Amino acid sequence: MGLIVQKFGGSSVANTDKLKVVSEHIISEVEMENRVVVVVSAQGKTTDKLISEEAEILKNPIKLNKEDLNENNLKREHDVLVSTGEQITISKLSMLLNKMGYKAVSLTGWQVPIITNSQYTNGKIRYIENKKILEYLKAGNIVIVAGFQGVDENENITTLGRGGSDTTAVAIAASLNADRCDIYTDVDGVYTSDPKIVDNVKKIDKISYDEMLELSSMGAKVLHNRCVEIGKKYNIPIYVKSTFEKNSIGTLVSDKGSFEDFMISGIAKDDYISRITIIGLENKIGKTYQLFKLLSDNMINVDIIVQSLGEHITRNIAFTVKMNDLEKTLRVLDENKDILKISQILHYENLSKVSIIGLGINNKLDIASSMFEALYENNINMHMISTSEIKISVLVNSDEADLAVKAIHKKFFE
Amino acid sequence: MGLIVQKFGGSSVANTDKLKVVSEHIISEVEMENRVVVVVSAQGKTTDKLISEEAEILKNPIKLNKEDLNENNLKREHDVLVSTGEQITISKLSMLLNKMGYKAVSLTGWQVPIITNSQYTNGKIRYIENKKILEYLKAGNIVIVAGFQGVDENENITTLGRGGSDTTAVAIAASLNADRCDIYTDVDGVYTSDPKIVDNVKKIDKISYDEMLELSSMGAKVLHNRCVEIGKKYNIPIYVKSTFEKNSIGTLVSDKGSFEDFMISGIAKDDYISRITIIGLENKIGKTYQLFKLLSDNMINVDIIVQSLGEHITRNIAFTVKMNDLEKTLRVLDENKDILKISQILHYENLSKVSIIGLGINNKLDIASSMFEALYENNINMHMISTSEIKISVLVNSDEADLAVKAIHKKFFE
Repeated sequence: MGLIVQKFGGSSVANTDKLKVVSEHIISEVEMENRVVVVVSAQGKTTDKLISEEAEILKNPIKLNKEDLNENNLKREHDVLVSTGEQITISKLSMLLNKMGYKAVSLTGWQVPIITNSQYTNGKIRYIENKKILEYLKAGNIVIVAGFQGVDENENITTLGRGGSDTTAVAIAASLNADRCDIYTDVDGVYTSDPKIVDNVKKIDKISYDEMLELSSMGAKVLHNRCVEIGKKYNIPIYVKSTFEKNSIGTLVSDKGSFEDFMISGIAKDDYISRITIIGLENKIGKTYQLFKLLSDNMINVDIIVQSLGEHITRNIAFTVKMNDLEKTLRVLDENKDILKISQILHYENLSKVSIIGLGINNKLDIASSMFEALYENNINMHMISTSEIKISVLVNSDEADLAVKAIHKKFFE
Repeated sequence: MGLIVQKFGGSSVANTDKLKVVSEHIISEVEMENRVVVVVSAQGKTTDKLISEEAEILKNPIKLNKEDLNENNLKREHDVLVSTGEQITISKLSMLLNKMGYKAVSLTGWQVPIITNSQYTNGKIRYIENKKILEYLKAGNIVIVAGFQGVDENENITTLGRGGSDTTAVAIAASLNADRCDIYTDVDGVYTSDPKIVDNVKKIDKISYDEMLELSSMGAKVLHNRCVEIGKKYNIPIYVKSTFEKNSIGTLVSDKGSFEDFMISGIAKDDYISRITIIGLENKIGKTYQLFKLLSDNMINVDIIVQSLGEHITRNIAFTVKMNDLEKTLRVLDENKDILKISQILHYENLSKVSIIGLGINNKLDIASSMFEALYENNINMHMISTSEIKISVLVNSDEADLAVKAIHKKFFE
């Protein structure tokens, strides 16, 4: 008799018929004598609808009072509003299971409780009290928990930000020391690349947490990073599988990777990247630190960094930021040009990062050259190269990125 | 500087434009240096929509498991579902006020908390913790509380049943010892009778709690009984006024009635009543008690009771029950015919109770005769008569009830 956490996303619970399919997945675990905790998202487009209603309220141009707008109050109310979405799903799914004769009980984020910090709209889970869940399980209930939401230590409702329901599921699995966490979604598992770009993608049967983290952060939208990080930290096996495909085996994300079958597990792509090159940074200890501290203080996320010696005693530094941080980055750099003693700032827009990911990369030197060969054969220029133990990334023009992904995929998988 | 509780019903908060009107009522109290707590219902048809979605889930005929359906679990989930309605309203109204530059904060039933018993779908408020509300008020916030909902001592969500938001508002006013509770609604106040029946109804400026209780229980749908009972117990002045009519003065419900202006305050009507007559109940001490204990044990509410001596040493007892309890009542009586030694059970359907209500009734003997005169002039037969200190009720055929209300209203008010 095991303890399983199952998670179903918004498209899996979108209407009554889909809730019936979900209930079959739950019941099949119950019939195998497993105890089951289910985490669900808001139904279909519910969250979008609530957000558009919020926009209608906020577009009101009236400002009667002299006091400043309390932005934090607005964020707090946003979370009060959107958290109703998952609350609706948990009650409906629990009703359905009870109606089918299976004892079930729903719990909102605050009822569990899932304690988060107080950062509205983007809360982080601090800890999960598992007492109530364990009591309900012991009494023979299927426990259905609202994903994506929690409560801070002052009993304010919070939401977890993007991918929040996956994080809820794996965090609950960790707090209960569950045997595994099944993430049901609208795809059959994790693929070697994006099926929208590459025709002959292959499903990955097994992948390590680290490889999955690289794939996730590269834009493979299957699992959110925080959820994989928690899975890794507490060693919870995560199965990604399809809600609606019969007999979906899915992908197992665990501490064991794919290296016996493939050298690399997948090809990923990340768009909307810009490269900034700083010419003539003073070659003095602390200057590089000063530069990136400045960016970090301004909440600018930097990804790839390449440093090289410039003319005379200066350095050149190139780094990438997301396109929507570009304007802010250039402004901040310009304002601090004199302090940093920068002679010139160049930038290059509309780049994409294409990466191969796999535990095998560390040991096999010919992977990089095969990757570069694939790009060379297709006349694709590389703007930057970055490598890590399980990843090789190259920066290419965005209009060549899909071709790059296809070429590399063909080289390694087809 | 006073402390005011305002309550706005579902039709008053139905959309963004209406929420703007509501915010004007709130702000006008704030501008007069009052501290304000606002209680709101779910927007417009939201609750109806959620209930129809619940019905769609429950109409599912699949019953896979052998265990009995857990009806209490289903009721629990009903409350989890419908309580999202008010949660949506409080967040939107708070957003709007914050956007207008007024500090506001929303609180759900469990956040206050409003502690109820565990009777799902029909919870009763046990007590209200006012600490959090007082703290937020002290920090200069408008506090917006979700009506109709609470939480039991095990942190399960409950709802209060019909008229619940009014009850929430007056109970909060009582717990804060507020100066008054303003119930905003779609009518201008309490009227001498139902405007749908009588043309020349008059608005009542002042009415006592007791008179209001009689009017409410008689089907004047303005205020729910429980809310008036709490107002009476804690002596909270309740103003019933219109959200959308400018300069609505409304009706003041307080410990002072209308007796200086009118003998009677209103005419009310209650439909769907049936009369049951029991012939030949044994004339022995305890037999009447035994009869009504039996009905009470079967959850049958009895209203008017008239007892008279029957033939020989038996009694005849007539009483009224709501039409939807009739079948159950007749079955229960029939099953216990022998124990109670009843010789015959008669019943009469489709009756209505028409009542005049007023503090003046107690002292003025001619009110009853004027009422009976009005009915006699219109050829309306009375099936039963019942009197109390502030009320005279007669039972008439339902198809003559509107005429009865009109005739009595004309006699006293026109």
